[in-house]
Amino acid sequence: MEFSSKLLENAVYEMSQLPGVGKRTALRLVLHLLRQPKTQTDHLVTALASLRNEIKFCKQCHSISDKDICDICSNSSRLKDIVCVVEDIRDVMAIENTGQYRGLYHVLGGKISPLDGIGPQDLNISSLMEKVKSGEIKELIFALSATMEGDTTNFYIYKQIENEQVKTSTIARGISVNDELEYADEVTLGRSIINRIPFENALKNT
Amino acid sequence: MEFSSKLLENAVYEMSQLPGVGKRTALRLVLHLLRQPKTQTDHLVTALASLRNEIKFCKQCHSISDKDICDICSNSSRLKDIVCVVEDIRDVMAIENTGQYRGLYHVLGGKISPLDGIGPQDLNISSLMEKVKSGEIKELIFALSATMEGDTTNFYIYKQIENEQVKTSTIARGISVNDELEYADEVTLGRSIINRIPFENALKNT
Ligand SMILES: [Zn+2]
Ligand SMILES: [Zn+2]
Repeated sequence: MEFSSKLLENAVYEMSQLPGVGKRTALRLVLHLLRQPKTQTDHLVTALASLRNEIKFCKQCHSISDKDICDICSNSSRLKDIVCVVEDIRDVMAIENTGQYRGLYHVLGGKISPLDGIGPQDLNISSLMEKVKSGEIKELIFALSATMEGDTTNFYIYKQIENEQVKTSTIARGISVNDELEYADEVTLGRSIINRIPFENALKNT
Repeated sequence: MEFSSKLLENAVYEMSQLPGVGKRTALRLVLHLLRQPKTQTDHLVTALASLRNEIKFCKQCHSISDKDICDICSNSSRLKDIVCVVEDIRDVMAIENTGQYRGLYHVLGGKISPLDGIGPQDLNISSLMEKVKSGEIKELIFALSATMEGDTTNFYIYKQIENEQVKTSTIARGISVNDELEYADEVTLGRSIINRIPFENALKNT
């Protein structure tokens, strides 16, 4: 693609760095912004910059929050001894939508993926270990997507806490293998939490 | 979609204002930026803001350019008396890519579309009229997309210059080279039959 403007080329290049956005799509999006009032680009730019610069994560569950402790963690009616381990905030939002879960969350911030250079130290795993070792948690629910990376991550955490006094379970696979959690329909997702099974049983099934 | 963070919600909202970007996609893109180094968001934000604030359009053809007169308009080897009328810079880039065209362009900046509230006065039509009336142009090639809006725009311009000394043509509509006939849409196929060309001419083109 040859551009008549360096400004245009730069904007298209940076836009095409987003996942799933090719050069053509990026050009379409950028030209759209040029046709809209300047305020639209201003708002987009300000919103992205503010988010990236002022982003905070809940000190307890690592979910994105504007407060030090998020609304879920600070909600006194939530069960404090059940913790659902998820990949990111999209999964928290998806599970909250079902209205079926009254425990807390722990957001890992990703999955172990050697191919992408993501190891346990890149995820919020040590703080999870601390929580478990404090003895405050009765049950840990693994709710990562059923991919190889998700299974690897589940298994890694499971091995770390094998000897602790905590029950482990994983959400029932009414959700098809390889499906991303966030795209599951609410009913299936809600049911899969209610019908969660002991992690040992899940191991036998693989 | 319920958000635990106003900053996140704003960023997702602004991102989802882009065409073809739903809330879920917007959330995925925004979370991606949060996982990448802060510099990536900085670069995106700067590139979009610079483009929108410093954008220039060629004074002659209205194409996006960092100069007052774009490289095509200022290229002395281009034919100055043939002007190809296009919707936006993507069409200029597509035609330039073919290496088949040596004339100039005129970028309208859109198509007449009453449903979207876009009338002739919103497009770069008056400057095209001036060019035509100056008598410098021998041929005007309409290269708008073959939609109702494209046809309306072609016809509007055509009626305006009917009495001027300028030849008008439109790019040939037909089955794409290498396309299987059975997969072509009916309208295209129909037009390609009506606008059939002498076989000798086709032979010359291959
Ligand atoms: Zn929290
Ligand atoms: Zn120009």
